[in-house]
Amino acid sequence: MTRLANLMPILDWGRHYRRTTLTNDIIAALIVTTMLIPQSLAYAMLAGLPAEVGLYASILPLVAYAIFGSSRTLAVGPVAVVSLMTATSVGEIAAQGTEAYLVAATLLALISGAMLVGMGLMKLGFVANFLSHPVISGFITASGLLIAAGQMKHLLGIQAGGHTLPEIASGLIGNLHAMNLPTLTIGAGVLAFLYFVRLKLRPLLVSFGLKPRPAEVITKAGPVLAVATTILAVTLLDLGAAGVPLVGAIPRGLPVPGLPAIDPDMIVALAGPALLISLIGFVESVSVAQTLAAKRRQRIVPDQELIGLGAANIAAGLSAGYPVTGGFARSVVNFDAGAETPAAGIFTAIGIALATLLLTPLLANLPQATLAATIIVAVLSLVNIEAIRRVWAYSRADFAAMAATILGTLFVGVEAGVVIGVALSLLLHLYRTSRPHMAVVGRVPGTEHFRNVERHAVITSPEVLSLRVDESLYFANTRYLEDRIAALVAERPELKHVVLLCSAINAIDASALESLEEINHRLKDAGISFHLSEVKGPVMDRLKRSSYLEDITGQVFLSQHEAMCQLTSSSRLTSRA
Amino acid sequence: MTRLANLMPILDWGRHYRRTTLTNDIIAALIVTTMLIPQSLAYAMLAGLPAEVGLYASILPLVAYAIFGSSRTLAVGPVAVVSLMTATSVGEIAAQGTEAYLVAATLLALISGAMLVGMGLMKLGFVANFLSHPVISGFITASGLLIAAGQMKHLLGIQAGGHTLPEIASGLIGNLHAMNLPTLTIGAGVLAFLYFVRLKLRPLLVSFGLKPRPAEVITKAGPVLAVATTILAVTLLDLGAAGVPLVGAIPRGLPVPGLPAIDPDMIVALAGPALLISLIGFVESVSVAQTLAAKRRQRIVPDQELIGLGAANIAAGLSAGYPVTGGFARSVVNFDAGAETPAAGIFTAIGIALATLLLTPLLANLPQATLAATIIVAVLSLVNIEAIRRVWAYSRADFAAMAATILGTLFVGVEAGVVIGVALSLLLHLYRTSRPHMAVVGRVPGTEHFRNVERHAVITSPEVLSLRVDESLYFANTRYLEDRIAALVAERPELKHVVLLCSAINAIDASALESLEEINHRLKDAGISFHLSEVKGPVMDRLKRSSYLEDITGQVFLSQHEAMCQLTSSSRLTSRA
Repeated sequence: MTRLANLMPILDWGRHYRRTTLTNDIIAALIVTTMLIPQSLAYAMLAGLPAEVGLYASILPLVAYAIFGSSRTLAVGPVAVVSLMTATSVGEIAAQGTEAYLVAATLLALISGAMLVGMGLMKLGFVANFLSHPVISGFITASGLLIAAGQMKHLLGIQAGGHTLPEIASGLIGNLHAMNLPTLTIGAGVLAFLYFVRLKLRPLLVSFGLKPRPAEVITKAGPVLAVATTILAVTLLDLGAAGVPLVGAIPRGLPVPGLPAIDPDMIVALAGPALLISLIGFVESVSVAQTLAAKRRQRIVPDQELIGLGAANIAAGLSAGYPVTGGFARSVVNFDAGAETPAAGIFTAIGIALATLLLTPLLANLPQATLAATIIVAVLSLVNIEAIRRVWAYSRADFAAMAATILGTLFVGVEAGVVIGVALSLLLHLYRTSRPHMAVVGRVPGTEHFRNVERHAVITSPEVLSLRVDESLYFANTRYLEDRIAALVAERPELKHVVLLCSAINAIDASALESLEEINHRLKDAGISFHLSEVKGPVMDRLKRSSYLEDITGQVFLSQHEAMCQLTSSSRLTSRA
Repeated sequence: MTRLANLMPILDWGRHYRRTTLTNDIIAALIVTTMLIPQSLAYAMLAGLPAEVGLYASILPLVAYAIFGSSRTLAVGPVAVVSLMTATSVGEIAAQGTEAYLVAATLLALISGAMLVGMGLMKLGFVANFLSHPVISGFITASGLLIAAGQMKHLLGIQAGGHTLPEIASGLIGNLHAMNLPTLTIGAGVLAFLYFVRLKLRPLLVSFGLKPRPAEVITKAGPVLAVATTILAVTLLDLGAAGVPLVGAIPRGLPVPGLPAIDPDMIVALAGPALLISLIGFVESVSVAQTLAAKRRQRIVPDQELIGLGAANIAAGLSAGYPVTGGFARSVVNFDAGAETPAAGIFTAIGIALATLLLTPLLANLPQATLAATIIVAVLSLVNIEAIRRVWAYSRADFAAMAATILGTLFVGVEAGVVIGVALSLLLHLYRTSRPHMAVVGRVPGTEHFRNVERHAVITSPEVLSLRVDESLYFANTRYLEDRIAALVAERPELKHVVLLCSAINAIDASALESLEEINHRLKDAGISFHLSEVKGPVMDRLKRSSYLEDITGQVFLSQHEAMCQLTSSSRLTSRA
């Protein structure tokens, strides 16, 4: 592959495009389009944007991803969590419904796209790794709850605001008196219908003789059916006059490409949120893409994914859209429906473009409650209580980071939640590695193996202390090692040799090197020699760049067994249970 | 030892106090007092404080440390770096020479003391570990340069300000015209004399038949001689009238203990600097204390050191002093002069108290240039170019953190330098561990050892991929592992088994567990089984808390050799050079 084909994977797969692939891609695109129409409208509403912005964000961004993305089957477009993050961050600098809000949302996509492309070109994809799984999982669960709570107002047909759970709850309670009964009927009905479709329809269809995969695909059309039915109901019963909030007139026609108005202050205000949106969108996307690619032994190039998603967001920013990323549910449907290449994304974009041109007049009578119900059903599937339980069982430290993220997101805000979670997970990691597991070891009788004296009956010598450190040595844990050795030496008056067993030490940084020098120096003052054993190749290479190997009072032994053989006089060995 | 004796080590060593110990401690105290008088005046000047504040900071704080500190020989009091940090942080909220400046400096000691005691009681000493050696070493070198540059104005007898190198340089150049020749003569003379004493006097005395240790101790009296001589010169030649800036009248008498005026806004403004001063003072102190204790196989308890230094700073805050910590040079002198217990500190405090009562009238005619010269000689010995060179040779990442600290300290400010250095060293550490060393391994012919296929001629199988990861698995590196395995699998069409060799994996966090599940799942989709080998005990215990060991498609082997024996049909083995 040439350099250009690396940057634009379409040049690679496009050359081998065949007729059967075309058919498969078109079928998948049809199914995804059906799913995407209601979703794009709903997520635009969730982001506080007019319905057409959701459609616009589902046209050019898909084409851009098809050109630059490295996943064959990722379905890009508006998604729930990113829509929520858009609503909260844009909501801080402009009021919903204003022109400034619209401009800020589009600008957010542009900034996020530029950041993603920049990170991709600079190979900075690893930055996303600092979002640990418990933090992401906690964040998505909390976002799901927050989104579902936020949509309740649409189900009830009332006006209410709020970006945190307490704000949303007090908004709902304060405005409950204004509840609109026809709206609630539609909302509750759609909710019940969608849950029926989700939980019961597929087994039902299968029991009628349909194959599982087509049955699965049909159930994904549930939201479209709900949309069509409620539009019909509104039109026939004139429910708009009865106070049911509707989507209203959507401008017909495609977005005119162009730069949004660029205000430097706005860019500064949006930079932080754009970074978080970029990272979270990227992490989610790559994880879906990897999972799907693995099923066909294909490969995802994470840095290229940054460029693909970045291009999609720039396209959103240039065509009056808002931030997009790879959606989990739609990508799985796209894959299951047989999509083979990113061309399916281009065909989906054509489908949405046609819908924007032809169907928009029909959507004016769509109740907002219908969209709210589809959002609630979609996001409640993101809430993963089982993941919380598993993390609790596995590791209290990880659970603490997860809980902080969830509580931060629900009670402080979306951005605060992520930032708190990331900071806490980093601190906990550093804390853990700053107190590494260390074991005084002795020889297991009859073997050359050395084990922890506290767990095994082993042979030790009062003149030789063998200490194994189960962690790389770096600045955060090196003083702990100094303290530990000082304490061990202070309680062993007969000591003549200390051997540091380095089998688990993968790196020694400059601080640790100085500490080892200091330990060597202090032991020397106390008349004790200091030895190393089982030092790994790369660590040894590094040590050779310093004068440590000349300065050390003892030796570097290839194995701990060799060290003990040379250092102990057999008469002094004692057995310890 | 009882719990109380743990908190107050004086209860332990005080019970065994003997007459010979008393003699040794008093001799050491006499020598340290001689050294401390000029230093306390000089460092107070460096901190922008009246001379008597330096004396006050050398009385009660020493007594407090003697009661609570765990080091037998650490000499606590004003030191150069902490004085500089005091000047910059207090200088931001009050003007030098005002009452508010004095109050803020005393309050800074009180806050820092409270923080240290708090950290000690909560066993938070490990926080100091996040200051890596290159950051501290870079910071001290840069502080030394900054202090020396800042004292130039006193040598020249001009007024100039500035907290960064460019500010100081432009201040000096702009005021050079006001230079006072008698002052410069005194300053240059003292500088030359002190360098002669430091570099030549000791060998000279030794060549005259004096033993090295007393010769060393005598050279430490150089500054006192310089002080006495210049006072005499000023008095005889009436140099005060010639425009030589003098220390001036020092209030006679001891400080009246009491709380400084406590202003909540000031506490908030000083909290950040107080934390940095506490941590840096603590790190320096503990490192000196550990080094000295090791020579006599004594033990330092880091968390108790926090309490000892905290008590000293609280004492400084209650007796009109300013932040103190353990000084390197004075502690070494104290140790070499034969101090055996912290009682030497109490005797030093008595010495300084007597000097404050009796000698202060004599100090009025002391030229500031003399003090500046003693500071310059002291701090230039802190500049450690050799350390910079060694870090450069050993590790570019550590060098980057060091260089950032030095440049930040010199050109942005003292606090910024430390913060930049710590942040960069954490990021670089995380970056390094986020891209762990991994090796595809094969069996060394005729052995049960497995080595890197790229470095050794080993036996591998096209159906089995053995991958060794040289790092604990945690959130920052787990996606890197996923990507690496995905890439390795994509290029091996015949692959049936992947074995992860876990001998260097000391921990697996919840993120890594999920990644392992994801890898297992993806490999399963591709028809490949996933195995682990040589999993450590604590890691295995942890994995048993999850369902991973039930879900894994492959097995957990005790050794890599066992894994290969079971998984390969010998006919498919290929030898690779």
